[in-house]
Amino acid sequence: MTDEREPIRVGVLGARGRMGIEVCRAVDAAEDLELVAMIDQGDWLFNASDAGAEVVVDFTTPDVVLDNLHWCIDQGINMVVGTSGFTEQRLDRVRTWLSHKPDVGVVIAPNFGVGAVLMMQFAARAARFFESVEIIEQHHPRKLDAPSGTATHTARLIAQARADAGRGAMPDATKDEVAGARGADIDGVRVHAVRATGLVAHQEVLFGTTGETLTIRHDSYDRASFMPGVLLAVRAVRNRPGLTVGLDPLLAEM
Amino acid sequence: MTDEREPIRVGVLGARGRMGIEVCRAVDAAEDLELVAMIDQGDWLFNASDAGAEVVVDFTTPDVVLDNLHWCIDQGINMVVGTSGFTEQRLDRVRTWLSHKPDVGVVIAPNFGVGAVLMMQFAARAARFFESVEIIEQHHPRKLDAPSGTATHTARLIAQARADAGRGAMPDATKDEVAGARGADIDGVRVHAVRATGLVAHQEVLFGTTGETLTIRHDSYDRASFMPGVLLAVRAVRNRPGLTVGLDPLLAEM
Amino acid sequence: MTDEREPIRVGVLGARGRMGIEVCRAVDAAEDLELVAMIDQGDWLFNASDAGAEVVVDFTTPDVVLDNLHWCIDQGINMVVGTSGFTEQRLDRVRTWLSHKPDVGVVIAPNFGVGAVLMMQFAARAARFFESVEIIEQHHPRKLDAPSGTATHTARLIAQARADAGRGAMPDATKDEVAGARGADIDGVRVHAVRATGLVAHQEVLFGTTGETLTIRHDSYDRASFMPGVLLAVRAVRNRPGLTVGLDPLLAEM
Amino acid sequence: MTDEREPIRVGVLGARGRMGIEVCRAVDAAEDLELVAMIDQGDWLFNASDAGAEVVVDFTTPDVVLDNLHWCIDQGINMVVGTSGFTEQRLDRVRTWLSHKPDVGVVIAPNFGVGAVLMMQFAARAARFFESVEIIEQHHPRKLDAPSGTATHTARLIAQARADAGRGAMPDATKDEVAGARGADIDGVRVHAVRATGLVAHQEVLFGTTGETLTIRHDSYDRASFMPGVLLAVRAVRNRPGLTVGLDPLLAEM
Repeated sequence: MTDEREPIRVGVLGARGRMGIEVCRAVDAAEDLELVAMIDQGDWLFNASDAGAEVVVDFTTPDVVLDNLHWCIDQGINMVVGTSGFTEQRLDRVRTWLSHKPDVGVVIAPNFGVGAVLMMQFAARAARFFESVEIIEQHHPRKLDAPSGTATHTARLIAQARADAGRGAMPDATKDEVAGARGADIDGVRVHAVRATGLVAHQEVLFGTTGETLTIRHDSYDRASFMPGVLLAVRAVRNRPGLTVGLDPLLAEM
Repeated sequence: MTDEREPIRVGVLGARGRMGIEVCRAVDAAEDLELVAMIDQGDWLFNASDAGAEVVVDFTTPDVVLDNLHWCIDQGINMVVGTSGFTEQRLDRVRTWLSHKPDVGVVIAPNFGVGAVLMMQFAARAARFFESVEIIEQHHPRKLDAPSGTATHTARLIAQARADAGRGAMPDATKDEVAGARGADIDGVRVHAVRATGLVAHQEVLFGTTGETLTIRHDSYDRASFMPGVLLAVRAVRNRPGLTVGLDPLLAEM
Repeated sequence: MTDEREPIRVGVLGARGRMGIEVCRAVDAAEDLELVAMIDQGDWLFNASDAGAEVVVDFTTPDVVLDNLHWCIDQGINMVVGTSGFTEQRLDRVRTWLSHKPDVGVVIAPNFGVGAVLMMQFAARAARFFESVEIIEQHHPRKLDAPSGTATHTARLIAQARADAGRGAMPDATKDEVAGARGADIDGVRVHAVRATGLVAHQEVLFGTTGETLTIRHDSYDRASFMPGVLLAVRAVRNRPGLTVGLDPLLAEM
Repeated sequence: MTDEREPIRVGVLGARGRMGIEVCRAVDAAEDLELVAMIDQGDWLFNASDAGAEVVVDFTTPDVVLDNLHWCIDQGINMVVGTSGFTEQRLDRVRTWLSHKPDVGVVIAPNFGVGAVLMMQFAARAARFFESVEIIEQHHPRKLDAPSGTATHTARLIAQARADAGRGAMPDATKDEVAGARGADIDGVRVHAVRATGLVAHQEVLFGTTGETLTIRHDSYDRASFMPGVLLAVRAVRNRPGLTVGLDPLLAEM
């Protein structure tokens, strides 16, 4: 249990990236948090430990985030990770590292927006009532991964809910397909990734049954929308040893 | 408690209307239901009691539905009502009539589609997390009331959820308005009713907070989509004395 | 030149399919048209010539439509084709057959809805002003091809307009893709095909440039919406020898 | 005719407003333009003439823009106006003032985004083909007028196109309306104005006819999207004496 009266000492990895800049600004503006290290490509991770960071926020890239996690867990530093690209296999590696450090907490969330989290909750809830469901995510064209981490996560939640309700495969008579037209198959749920200049971060989950469709859509126009979720995780992670995936359990505690 | 092995005897009011025709067809096709009376403008309500109807389904119009309710309750006939136009005041009148007939059940639902019901549940759930929310409903131009019963009901659910969470009025700096531009005010929630040829029945609930929006949209393409909900109510109403508003309590019991 | 005072004798191929039934109904209801042959799987094509059909409407499947075209052209019968799956190569084969029959006319349209045709015209017009554009089409899950003929046709129109305006490839930094996530590549335009119960026929063309997007969306709720376009083509095809692709040239003449 | 080699001297009214700040930045960054006056509430308009402004850009409010126009026209200064709230009556007053100053040019545009201009062009073009059409515009809740100038302008273009095609009133059976539900009536076209935190500037034009709808939607995520249009007008206005309404004529000349 940490002393809540002292500001939490926070380091940021990927501090000069688009999300990192916002995180630094938000941490700096929060009275109960202190920004003690801003680290980016070319900087030493030791800066974080030297500065006494209790929590490190990581918005880097899929190819370096695992190294960052390994190092921070080893150093006993808690982490809040918004970097995308986490497969179940990658999560298992993090769980293994954490098993040797029972006091360290890590929150990995594919999306820190409360709107996005509600979208996922509603999607999981609706899944059992509909014959069909597909996901369309839309992002700016500088994004490296397709589909987005949020879309992949949503697809898995839906697949699980359908399985729990005993629902089989969705109807699909396609027999003449131009490669890729039907999207990526994530646990049996089709996911389509649109990339266009002007877009920010959007996702639509489309449910269909006889004669009706239900659509849940999230539009994120501004990175600032993620900051309340990031700060919530920063404040909670020291008291949540082990791995927490997604913002849901933290929201439920509010 | 009624005997479940005998088919339930069902009468339909508004039997020659668009929805009524679908209801007759659906009742007729269900093995556990028997269609005993099809009544429309100009027919006697006595036909329903003479035929021994246990449940009467009403898809008529706002100007006659109250008389139908009064008469059926008096006769001890249970009712499932999909006619729109129910205000809190009208519901109170129905409650009064029912207080004199403790065995009679009435289900009044602004919408019998499971997609619509989920839309309303999600809207009520999301309401506390967002600063702003407005409703846009879209229907064919033959519709008599604006906004729709579903939209009005959704607005009230949202208003209640906001009040429970201590949320005040939504931000709105409008000072130069062409009359009607900002929609109808239903308990502080703005509702916009679009009417156009080609549309069937659609509703969008738009939530907004800093930098993000969450939209829940329901599209009903076919009246057939309401039938599972109507039959569910027909089967349940005899065992639910008093007034049940909306399909939610029935779904929760599934 | 044919005598306009006698009703045009019309045969329908695929007469028991969903679209074929609508076509038969629409032809039957039109005073200036006479339905002389309804042909489906298992029936002889000779029925059409025996009945003296001047125009044959084909809503069959991609695997038989070419044989139908070959046979009708050989017989000197004009055709209106709504079956999908036409590649440039297939169109060339039709042109070759028609070159031997200079009096025969064939109209092949990926879509007979006026809304769809306007969508394609607007998409072609907007193409030069935007850095990015992608297509999302959504259909019922009984559809055999993905993407739809309309989507493929729209993509080609856009690709041509971009080439004419000297626009190069669209920005896309994707380097970590689950196969299919980024859709089908049709002449450099990404096309996504969604399939779900409850959907009818929908298409969205999304254009993006710095800070803004423009979306053109067509929703077809009912096959009846295609009939005015089909009848327009039936009336025009005898006076348009050779191959006409799309409804645009016919609309322009109105 | 002005000398094109010297940078154009530009003043900005409403320079500390959200749009004004963007205009100042964009003018400052353009090599062929020189920012000579930044004027806001409390500053003297004389600053613009003293600084030798050839063109003044006005993003102020409906209640002061007419005074600004009157003064600038009197001084012989050309104007580019993005402030909303222009009725036909207001435009006539500007035309009267300009009739006394034949060399002065004024461009008043309800919207400077190329996406918005295309949306309006497409809407005007589609109008004759559809029985019904309504407009839904969505903006941030700090907006003063409802509906937006763009929506009003679009409605008028559509009304004119319908009248030209001999189309009468749209079908609408509404007889039981909560005040405002059916939106504002702009020349017979219903316009709905949604206001919510998180929104930026969005507009949807929905056309409907039997069995189908066509939707044209414009989303503006960032004020930067208007700057190319504003600068285009600044460069063109000195050579366009009299009143130019909308960006269309300027785009057509490109």
